[in-house]
Amino acid sequence: MAEAMKYVGLDVGGTTMKAAVVDDAGVPGPAVSLPTEAHRGQDAGLETMCETIRQAVKAAGLTMRDVAAIGVATPGLMDIKLGLILDPPNLKPWRNVPVPAHIRKVFDKPTAFENDANAAAFGEFWVGAGAGVDSLVLFTLGTGVGGGIIVGGRVLSGEHSHGGEVGHLRIDLPDRGRLCGCGRRGCLEAYASATSVVARTREALASYRGPTRLRELLRDGDGAEMSSKEIFDVAAEGDALAVQMVDDTAYFLALGACAIMATVDPEVITFGGGMVAAGDPFLAKIKEYVSRFGLSYPASKVQVRFATLGSDAGFIGAAGVARLLVKGGAA
Amino acid sequence: MAEAMKYVGLDVGGTTMKAAVVDDAGVPGPAVSLPTEAHRGQDAGLETMCETIRQAVKAAGLTMRDVAAIGVATPGLMDIKLGLILDPPNLKPWRNVPVPAHIRKVFDKPTAFENDANAAAFGEFWVGAGAGVDSLVLFTLGTGVGGGIIVGGRVLSGEHSHGGEVGHLRIDLPDRGRLCGCGRRGCLEAYASATSVVARTREALASYRGPTRLRELLRDGDGAEMSSKEIFDVAAEGDALAVQMVDDTAYFLALGACAIMATVDPEVITFGGGMVAAGDPFLAKIKEYVSRFGLSYPASKVQVRFATLGSDAGFIGAAGVARLLVKGGAA
Repeated sequence: MAEAMKYVGLDVGGTTMKAAVVDDAGVPGPAVSLPTEAHRGQDAGLETMCETIRQAVKAAGLTMRDVAAIGVATPGLMDIKLGLILDPPNLKPWRNVPVPAHIRKVFDKPTAFENDANAAAFGEFWVGAGAGVDSLVLFTLGTGVGGGIIVGGRVLSGEHSHGGEVGHLRIDLPDRGRLCGCGRRGCLEAYASATSVVARTREALASYRGPTRLRELLRDGDGAEMSSKEIFDVAAEGDALAVQMVDDTAYFLALGACAIMATVDPEVITFGGGMVAAGDPFLAKIKEYVSRFGLSYPASKVQVRFATLGSDAGFIGAAGVARLLVKGGAA
Repeated sequence: MAEAMKYVGLDVGGTTMKAAVVDDAGVPGPAVSLPTEAHRGQDAGLETMCETIRQAVKAAGLTMRDVAAIGVATPGLMDIKLGLILDPPNLKPWRNVPVPAHIRKVFDKPTAFENDANAAAFGEFWVGAGAGVDSLVLFTLGTGVGGGIIVGGRVLSGEHSHGGEVGHLRIDLPDRGRLCGCGRRGCLEAYASATSVVARTREALASYRGPTRLRELLRDGDGAEMSSKEIFDVAAEGDALAVQMVDDTAYFLALGACAIMATVDPEVITFGGGMVAAGDPFLAKIKEYVSRFGLSYPASKVQVRFATLGSDAGFIGAAGVARLLVKGGAA
């Protein structure tokens, strides 16, 4: 076992599953990807997981004998301790799926199990935006806002598998905050996810009287087509309303970061997902608001960075937590 | 060393220093207490720390030879990694005080150093409200709101010694929240500390037209004497305005707990400090709001409890972190 220091990381998403063999230094081999097809049911899903793992090992020119451990990251409501995907909204109709037990049985390898955003955070901590630091918190900005917390070289999974659910940090009072997908009001996700950026922009447009290219974008596709990327692109051209929307997004994300600074107080706070494409001006805005609204001592010291691994963070991190199973200790 | 499994815990406060010898099971011997007299300067302060430790050892009928390690908990802005109290508002004019280095030099024992609220959280985790659980977050309700986070059997001190500064979790937006002692707006402390409960009550009284005993209390001492305890006492008698104030306090504390559930997701969330005297009805209110406003899965499982160690939590916890220095591993 001590010689076969390769790990398979598998990241199960609502649309595809992606896996790669990752070496001891966190360098991934070729990634393979298969459609998840959750509608075919969870037994088919478990078999697809195994097949993705097999293909990743083959793509790396290896056999299962070279693999020391396997890590699987999955979305949705999980019980990490029990090793179950409970009731994931993106993987209907799956329910109470014993993922790590199945993988362990099929491959007879130590198998780690993590939430997908937690795994991505571990990937960034191990070999991405946080390589070499002691602690990191990731915010992932997509259709929702996810995240993960790494302290002491480990994922903070939480007692009930809800560690690092930073999209549900509330930034406004529940009686007047924006409605979140979770049914509560005031969650960061309701302000700063890609979906929410578009929703806020639509609302602002309704009462905005000045000139703005955003109005055309809304008209073009009957209002169905405007994406957060377009809003960020138009902002980069100097459009005043778009600039305001991006600025507000940076402000809301900074408020999330401030809550992290008053709880975890990590060395690095990092933001991943599509909005990262907005580049340095957006990051500078986030940092400005962190300085202005954070507790002064940690705000003066925390490193605020964009994530660097992109969509590979999940499987790299899954392999990283698998590695801890056999290496022990911190990463 | 392996036979002398006794630890001294010292809790340095703005008014007094308190110490006791604590055994391997977390049971404290007689506590001794000396005035802090910060105004006499930090050299005198360091000597008082040593003297408090000596007296605690003597009070336990032991000698320093019986002590395996010492733990010191201090308030204010610290750099835990560097072993310094930086610039504590409650210990003026102390500045950059090398507490653990001094204690280590004088007694030649392994010496742990922690923030006082973090130490209290560790005490509750070790032998108080969280004895036997995996993870705990404490909110301490006093003139401010402090706290501490315990995960993996360790204090989450944070990279910049601001881990568990839960009083500065923001519950309202910074442009309209209440002004906090830290100079920012919207911090939990500005709503739920004993001081803030009184301030909110004064404000509510100004526009309240109904009958309330709180009005008398305000008049009695020219408005200077009303305490949060009195407000809670009057609420227990059914006074409508006081009941509202207590209810609001429970609501604000629950919002703090919700932020903890979306980040740390601990097994136990516990509340300590004077307001604990309000008893079960107050705790029931906090739990009700946690259920209503928390993420449903952790909210259905988290244990919300009052702290049990009272003001002994700090020195017991300080001894507990000292114990980790020599025992290693989790508590």
